Amino acid sequence: MTEHVPNEVPSARKRGRPKGSTTGTTRAAILKAASKEFSRAGYEAASLRSVARRAGVDPALVHHYFKDKSDLFVQTMRIPVNPGEIIAEAATAPLEEMGEALTRALLATWRKPAFCTAATAMIRGLVSSSSAAKVLRPFLQEQIFSRLGARLPEESAEPRVALVASQVVGLIVARYIIGLEPLASMDDEQVIELVAPTIQRYLTGQLPALNH
Amino acid sequence: MTEHVPNEVPSARKRGRPKGSTTGTTRAAILKAASKEFSRAGYEAASLRSVARRAGVDPALVHHYFKDKSDLFVQTMRIPVNPGEIIAEAATAPLEEMGEALTRALLATWRKPAFCTAATAMIRGLVSSSSAAKVLRPFLQEQIFSRLGARLPEESAEPRVALVASQVVGLIVARYIIGLEPLASMDDEQVIELVAPTIQRYLTGQLPALNH
Repeated sequence: MTEHVPNEVPSARKRGRPKGSTTGTTRAAILKAASKEFSRAGYEAASLRSVARRAGVDPALVHHYFKDKSDLFVQTMRIPVNPGEIIAEAATAPLEEMGEALTRALLATWRKPAFCTAATAMIRGLVSSSSAAKVLRPFLQEQIFSRLGARLPEESAEPRVALVASQVVGLIVARYIIGLEPLASMDDEQVIELVAPTIQRYLTGQLPALNH
Repeated sequence: MTEHVPNEVPSARKRGRPKGSTTGTTRAAILKAASKEFSRAGYEAASLRSVARRAGVDPALVHHYFKDKSDLFVQTMRIPVNPGEIIAEAATAPLEEMGEALTRALLATWRKPAFCTAATAMIRGLVSSSSAAKVLRPFLQEQIFSRLGARLPEESAEPRVALVASQVVGLIVARYIIGLEPLASMDDEQVIELVAPTIQRYLTGQLPALNH
């Protein structure tokens, strides 16, 4: 559980495989177009095709540099690790252990300085700017929901994932961003013991309120 | 539970009781000095006396306009309701019902448009700026801790309050600031049923991790 960038995202594929002189320029032009497209059309409406159109290149070229829309988004926003990938391994844990697996994956990832810095910036953006939230939210929902929601009963998956997100975001903000003591100084194992049962309850607990 | 500004804070006392022509000016001068003092000395080190010194007025005059340091801070930061007052009533509930009482008080307060706007600004400041966090954190800790912590076993009160804060902040950010669905559209009673047990567990649950 120390390496959360899974092998199925071949980084060789996304960063300038053909070493021609225009590679960097083309990739940069695509990223620039993607940045505009994501902020204007939004994550959901944007596509590799619409980004290609905006960049004036063939869609195949966008596919050549970027694995899929989420990869393009992650590169465009300079997110060092796709949040979907953080939870990818944890999301394969047995359902009754997933609360602990998710909490553990989150805390382990946060120990990586590059991730921590960029993720703090991302969460600050999400909280402080409505327009950043508008772009990031559907991306995060898709990435997290596609992995986590698929494991949960269909009729309650969405509220369960949203409840998990509320505790995860609160933990990140309190422990890492505001630095609320003694939560900020606790060791990871202690935090896992305290918070994982909350996550587990939101994932698989009896929640009669969801049947209303 | 619809009115959370308790009677023991007489608002007549804080806003210009003597209607002399210099009242507004003096009060404004004190607020200006307080703003500097809180941001330079920090909430903990600042006092009505140090603010009076900075404003060049008698400490009795500061006491005349402001009930105490937290009141001065709330007025200086234009916080529409002291967060300590939101939880004041809930914090008197029987311990085993406090999770629900706190969640209910929070959601009810958030229904007030003036509060919601200003509190969103406060939380955005807390998350997005380290310097705002530095000033606000000790104030929030004091206000919340003095009311809630006093009801809890001394040896675990601080981590319990911090855990409560993590879920409360996460709920506010997810439901009200990011607008994460379906949490954003749920009715208050549903949110209370879902989240109050988490708050209750943090307040009074068996948490062996705190005995490490």
